[in-house]
Amino acid sequence: MHGETQPLGIALAAVVGAGHVTAALDIGERYRVDVTRKYASRPAFLVRPATTDEVAAVVRVASAHRTPVTVVGGQTGTVGSAVPSDGGIALSLERMNRITEIDLLSMTMTVEAGCLLQIAQEAAEDKGALLPLDLGARGSAMIGGVIGTNAGGNRVLRWGMMRDMVFGLEAVLADGTVISSMTKMLKDNAGYNWKHLLIGSEGTLGIVTRAVLRLRPLPSTRQTALVAAPNFGKCIEVLRRLEITLSGRLSSFELMWEDFYERMTEAQLPVRPRPLPLGYPIYALIEAMGGDVEGDDAQFERALNTLLEESAIQDAVIARSERERQALWAVREDLQLGIAPMRPFRSYDVSMGVSDMPAFVDTARKNVSVAYPNAQMIFYGHAGDGNLHALVTIGAPMDADVEMRLDTSIFDAVRGVNGSISAEHGIGISRAPFLSWTRSKRELELMQALKQVFDPQHILNPGKLMDACGGLPK
Amino acid sequence: MHGETQPLGIALAAVVGAGHVTAALDIGERYRVDVTRKYASRPAFLVRPATTDEVAAVVRVASAHRTPVTVVGGQTGTVGSAVPSDGGIALSLERMNRITEIDLLSMTMTVEAGCLLQIAQEAAEDKGALLPLDLGARGSAMIGGVIGTNAGGNRVLRWGMMRDMVFGLEAVLADGTVISSMTKMLKDNAGYNWKHLLIGSEGTLGIVTRAVLRLRPLPSTRQTALVAAPNFGKCIEVLRRLEITLSGRLSSFELMWEDFYERMTEAQLPVRPRPLPLGYPIYALIEAMGGDVEGDDAQFERALNTLLEESAIQDAVIARSERERQALWAVREDLQLGIAPMRPFRSYDVSMGVSDMPAFVDTARKNVSVAYPNAQMIFYGHAGDGNLHALVTIGAPMDADVEMRLDTSIFDAVRGVNGSISAEHGIGISRAPFLSWTRSKRELELMQALKQVFDPQHILNPGKLMDACGGLPK
Repeated sequence: MHGETQPLGIALAAVVGAGHVTAALDIGERYRVDVTRKYASRPAFLVRPATTDEVAAVVRVASAHRTPVTVVGGQTGTVGSAVPSDGGIALSLERMNRITEIDLLSMTMTVEAGCLLQIAQEAAEDKGALLPLDLGARGSAMIGGVIGTNAGGNRVLRWGMMRDMVFGLEAVLADGTVISSMTKMLKDNAGYNWKHLLIGSEGTLGIVTRAVLRLRPLPSTRQTALVAAPNFGKCIEVLRRLEITLSGRLSSFELMWEDFYERMTEAQLPVRPRPLPLGYPIYALIEAMGGDVEGDDAQFERALNTLLEESAIQDAVIARSERERQALWAVREDLQLGIAPMRPFRSYDVSMGVSDMPAFVDTARKNVSVAYPNAQMIFYGHAGDGNLHALVTIGAPMDADVEMRLDTSIFDAVRGVNGSISAEHGIGISRAPFLSWTRSKRELELMQALKQVFDPQHILNPGKLMDACGGLPK
Repeated sequence: MHGETQPLGIALAAVVGAGHVTAALDIGERYRVDVTRKYASRPAFLVRPATTDEVAAVVRVASAHRTPVTVVGGQTGTVGSAVPSDGGIALSLERMNRITEIDLLSMTMTVEAGCLLQIAQEAAEDKGALLPLDLGARGSAMIGGVIGTNAGGNRVLRWGMMRDMVFGLEAVLADGTVISSMTKMLKDNAGYNWKHLLIGSEGTLGIVTRAVLRLRPLPSTRQTALVAAPNFGKCIEVLRRLEITLSGRLSSFELMWEDFYERMTEAQLPVRPRPLPLGYPIYALIEAMGGDVEGDDAQFERALNTLLEESAIQDAVIARSERERQALWAVREDLQLGIAPMRPFRSYDVSMGVSDMPAFVDTARKNVSVAYPNAQMIFYGHAGDGNLHALVTIGAPMDADVEMRLDTSIFDAVRGVNGSISAEHGIGISRAPFLSWTRSKRELELMQALKQVFDPQHILNPGKLMDACGGLPK
């Protein structure tokens, strides 16, 4: 092992070539600072390997030097998971961006970790297939990142999270060995499922280098509607009814409380007129996809008409064109204008049983308003997944104490309904102080034991998830 | 700890009550012998705890006595996973059989591990919900068993394996502590996913005591057809086309090679006439479920008609009644008459990329016929999942050498296509000698390290999966 005797930079250059090692001061901001601009760092080296073997060799060098390694992907995470350690190695897999196979019989795509999600989506689409994972950061998020964080998004209701799309996986472990099971099948009950342990581990158990992803046939029809319901219970009844009548086709069911809807649509006036009037307690954006060109639109309309006739919904608008479809989605996704007046705000991504959502929203509102009577909050989210997002502002800049008090208010409400402090964004740095509010002592002990098996030197993405604050409950 | 000083039986009786401890000679056959009657054992005690705390206390006693603990469920596994150790504890959770909640807003069911699958299915159905996992052994398999083996079945194509239906999980670990995350939501990215490690670990990492299962809205329509295709490629084209046109509704796509179809239908004559004539190379049983009473049947028929017109399929019959539906399923599921002339046979449950299936079938046939020129083989399976079942007979009784030679022939073909030696039945005892044919050295080392974390004394179901034969490749 040269790594033990050579200086770190020389050892790294020997692995990937001097042209693919960048020293501290020359490292670009996008490898050091995350999208929230909350976390920044000063890594000693940026290293850009070209192959799995090079990644393995880099990790062996890091291990010999006891130097932290953090994979820097699209840097679009929101909890600081992919911010390198000061003095550590920032590992970019951007050169490992190839799609090496699309197998339309097996409906799989074999892809390197540095491939952008959007590139992978488009490559699948070109072949008439769908890579169902979709999220706003598709143009910057890398496949390795969406696997490492078990990304969710707007279509989890139908196709699941990233976890559910990974058939095969290859990763470099902390000792610089490669673990690989690049299989193409849904079913494989031959031993402990280490893949599921790596997926969502935020780069702390291994470095994902390649994957075989499950594809689906590309839908040829799409129906989108915005509906208004008299209360939360009715809205969930609508969700369940549509899951039956659109059986299997329902891909999104995005819940928006009245204050969210009012704020977002208000900000987009007059360019975009409100698709439905104000005044309803709850709104839902509904999307279905299918492949029956003759039947799907009519089925969707029939389903909504029935719900209107039965007063399960009070109002509805169906998109009649791609332009109208985008306008409906803009209410839910084009958040920048609407949330601008709330800056600075703190955002949350929590989950719970659907039946517990109203209690959570009530308690969270109460907790926050006790602490900050003038605070404003909006709620929205992926109702079918039990996943709510919330934004909170106190109408003033927030220091660390305020943030902690807000977090405590929200996560106390989460704990009260046996929910999770992170539905899809992960733990990273920012959620780590509250990990013990959502995981029991025994779970945390087990997680620490697992970390010890995978990475006894704690060189893989240290300071994140378990590491950040001890993790054990006080 | 009394366990260290008291005799084992007395310590166990102190935990669960003397009435729920049965000593060796009084233990009924169904707790000692599995359904294949290939594996039998002489456990020292049968223990039937009533609560999770009692399970934990039993495990603490076992740990103090260094005595193996094996959960005996429905004993319908086929690889010997649930056969107790000689002199060990057979743990039956049959008294822990309650369904404690069905939450129709969250669409979840909270259930104890000893509940029979069929009871859970029926309880869901009574409330208008579907627990989608279904398999032939539904009347004997327990929830803990289908979680411990990550069971599959006939509807994986649409709803996934058992793994995909577990939202919350509670288990007793080898040190007698309880690990629990009985949550009700699809999304939870807060730390390492230990649930997925326990699911499918065949009782070697922990004892599942309770779970929160995901329910789905109960479909109200069902369409079933048998089709014939000119070759494997066309048959898979049909699968992919139906995945589009029946978008999301397709729940089963069961492939049957000609020899399987001939044998099964022949055996059922004249009671059941052949639904389609002989002479086609490949047959598929297709089922879809939905909730659109007005549209589903017509959509299904239209889809098949299009495939007929385009010669993707050569023949088709649609079930017009529940009786006809059952007759079509009988071809695939009512195997006893058809396979009787093949006894004694050896059965396989393997998986691979769908595109590799023809190569696998060819190689497997060749390998077997080189070893045994008069051997007969039939293939059938869940094509959409990459899962094939095979039965092989050499027309004579098989000793251990013959079995090993057949296994080698089949698993060599599996290895050649980067497949798995166990798609859904697990490893248990019978597949353990070949685990290294489907998992790499690094994977096996990691699995052993994980076992060491969970069960350093090797008291949980020893002799199964990793344990049986060292597991490491020669």
